[in-house]
Amino acid sequence: MAIRTRVTDMLGIEKPIIQAAMGWIARSQLSSAVSNAGGMGIIETSSGELDAVKDEIVKMRQLTDKPFGVNVAQAFIRDPGIIQFVIDQGVKFVTTSAGDPMKYTATLKGAGLTVFHVVPNLAGALRAVEAGVDGLIVEGGEGGGFKNPKDVASMVLVPLVCERVNIPVVAAGGIMDGRTMAAAFALGAEGVLMGTRILSSTESPVHPNWKAAIIKAEATDTVFLNRKGPGPALRALRTERTTRLETEGSPNIFGEFARTQEVYFGGDLEAGIALTGQVAGRITEEKPVRQIFDETLSEFQQVLMRMQSFT
Amino acid sequence: MAIRTRVTDMLGIEKPIIQAAMGWIARSQLSSAVSNAGGMGIIETSSGELDAVKDEIVKMRQLTDKPFGVNVAQAFIRDPGIIQFVIDQGVKFVTTSAGDPMKYTATLKGAGLTVFHVVPNLAGALRAVEAGVDGLIVEGGEGGGFKNPKDVASMVLVPLVCERVNIPVVAAGGIMDGRTMAAAFALGAEGVLMGTRILSSTESPVHPNWKAAIIKAEATDTVFLNRKGPGPALRALRTERTTRLETEGSPNIFGEFARTQEVYFGGDLEAGIALTGQVAGRITEEKPVRQIFDETLSEFQQVLMRMQSFT
Repeated sequence: MAIRTRVTDMLGIEKPIIQAAMGWIARSQLSSAVSNAGGMGIIETSSGELDAVKDEIVKMRQLTDKPFGVNVAQAFIRDPGIIQFVIDQGVKFVTTSAGDPMKYTATLKGAGLTVFHVVPNLAGALRAVEAGVDGLIVEGGEGGGFKNPKDVASMVLVPLVCERVNIPVVAAGGIMDGRTMAAAFALGAEGVLMGTRILSSTESPVHPNWKAAIIKAEATDTVFLNRKGPGPALRALRTERTTRLETEGSPNIFGEFARTQEVYFGGDLEAGIALTGQVAGRITEEKPVRQIFDETLSEFQQVLMRMQSFT
Repeated sequence: MAIRTRVTDMLGIEKPIIQAAMGWIARSQLSSAVSNAGGMGIIETSSGELDAVKDEIVKMRQLTDKPFGVNVAQAFIRDPGIIQFVIDQGVKFVTTSAGDPMKYTATLKGAGLTVFHVVPNLAGALRAVEAGVDGLIVEGGEGGGFKNPKDVASMVLVPLVCERVNIPVVAAGGIMDGRTMAAAFALGAEGVLMGTRILSSTESPVHPNWKAAIIKAEATDTVFLNRKGPGPALRALRTERTTRLETEGSPNIFGEFARTQEVYFGGDLEAGIALTGQVAGRITEEKPVRQIFDETLSEFQQVLMRMQSFT
């Protein structure tokens, strides 16, 4: 079974599923599994570890012959040389985020790359269209990660953007299976982005403690932190530490990421902040990426049939 | 065109659209317009004005011969006599909310009424099923009104509940048109509830200032207040006053509703709190209820066709 949209056509992928560019996690082991399963694997830069990231981009060529992309998290990148590096490596797809889309779009498109910009609201979407991006990743507030403090849920944001722009939209935030992919398409999207679902996959390099916490979590077990700044807001797994941060705030949110290696790969979830979306409350088992994608497409078809049955 | 689900069958309505039981607003003028347009009009009790509410229930009989319901907002009702009054009036459908579904379900069902309970999370849904309700109204955090402080977005909550219960689910929060109704159905719902969209309809009794503010609002122009209590959390229109409450908090959230008449019907949006959902950011004009519903069903069909075109 195949689903063909402007997103699959533009990106040359089989399945309209893009992997979130999760800092430290979206490296070649996981991203190649996504690309090999027919989705779009993305290498992250939000960790700011550009030397490691460059190695990972090179490694991707050995691990997959399918398309993959790189995320340029503008606020987290101090070396603009990454742009030229991505171009030189022959990467064909870039997502830009956490910054003004005017900054790199022309350069990237001039080099022949396809550029999707990540936006948290309509104003950002219209700005990105003006910048000439090829597509948008529209990110609802229910998703994990760094967020706009004025969060808007996917159910509102995705249709709002889709009815105002003509370029293809990828829905992010709350997406993890065929039901949610079908909902995103109903709202006007032509692709979906999955973060927490892929983070908790078999191929994900994160510590089993985090995967277990996601499997155990209720939908109410995330917190939205730092809404008043300074620095970005974010959605994360509820732990003792993040519950305290939710109540007391944090004078320096970035300081909370100093021991991220211990959280993500050492399994000490109280050593920092584990960025996680609300879909943690729906994830009940670890699965290989390919199985996640196959089940998603199969369920998408079933959902269409069920919806037809009401009319 | 017709859409038939367990919700339309159970409630005897033409269109699977239920009107939110908005305090002070969901009275006979508006609710009869909803019922006459083929949806399910609901008379509110969350205002606590039980004498007025009783008159409104009686008036509904004169204004429509279609089915209508009453909401029993348990936390706001001091006189349990309302239950018997609703039964005596021959009302066939009740939604219960803001309280334990064990309290009134047996009495209401024993009298032959159909009972749907409003829930903000999975635990509440499972409790309501245990209480024997006929259906659920599953309310995502993007919706306006009084909310659970641990809010979960519709994109996550609706499928979470739908895959765990066998009774029909009505999705609330973010719903205002055919795209969002189709998304709700994709997630597993068999009906939708609209609040802000109906609040801003032609037949709505609220002051034009509020309708104008909704039409002007961006999707980021709501605030989520009182997450830490005491009293309920809520989502409301962003104004100078509510922006201040968002930052400073409120020692007595109910005190903010002392001048609700002036806010809702006098048009002074700074005199209190105007409960409003994020869909305010998508509403661009005032429309009659019948037009809203007809366009919703027509767009629902178009969405199904568009989704099919991708496969």
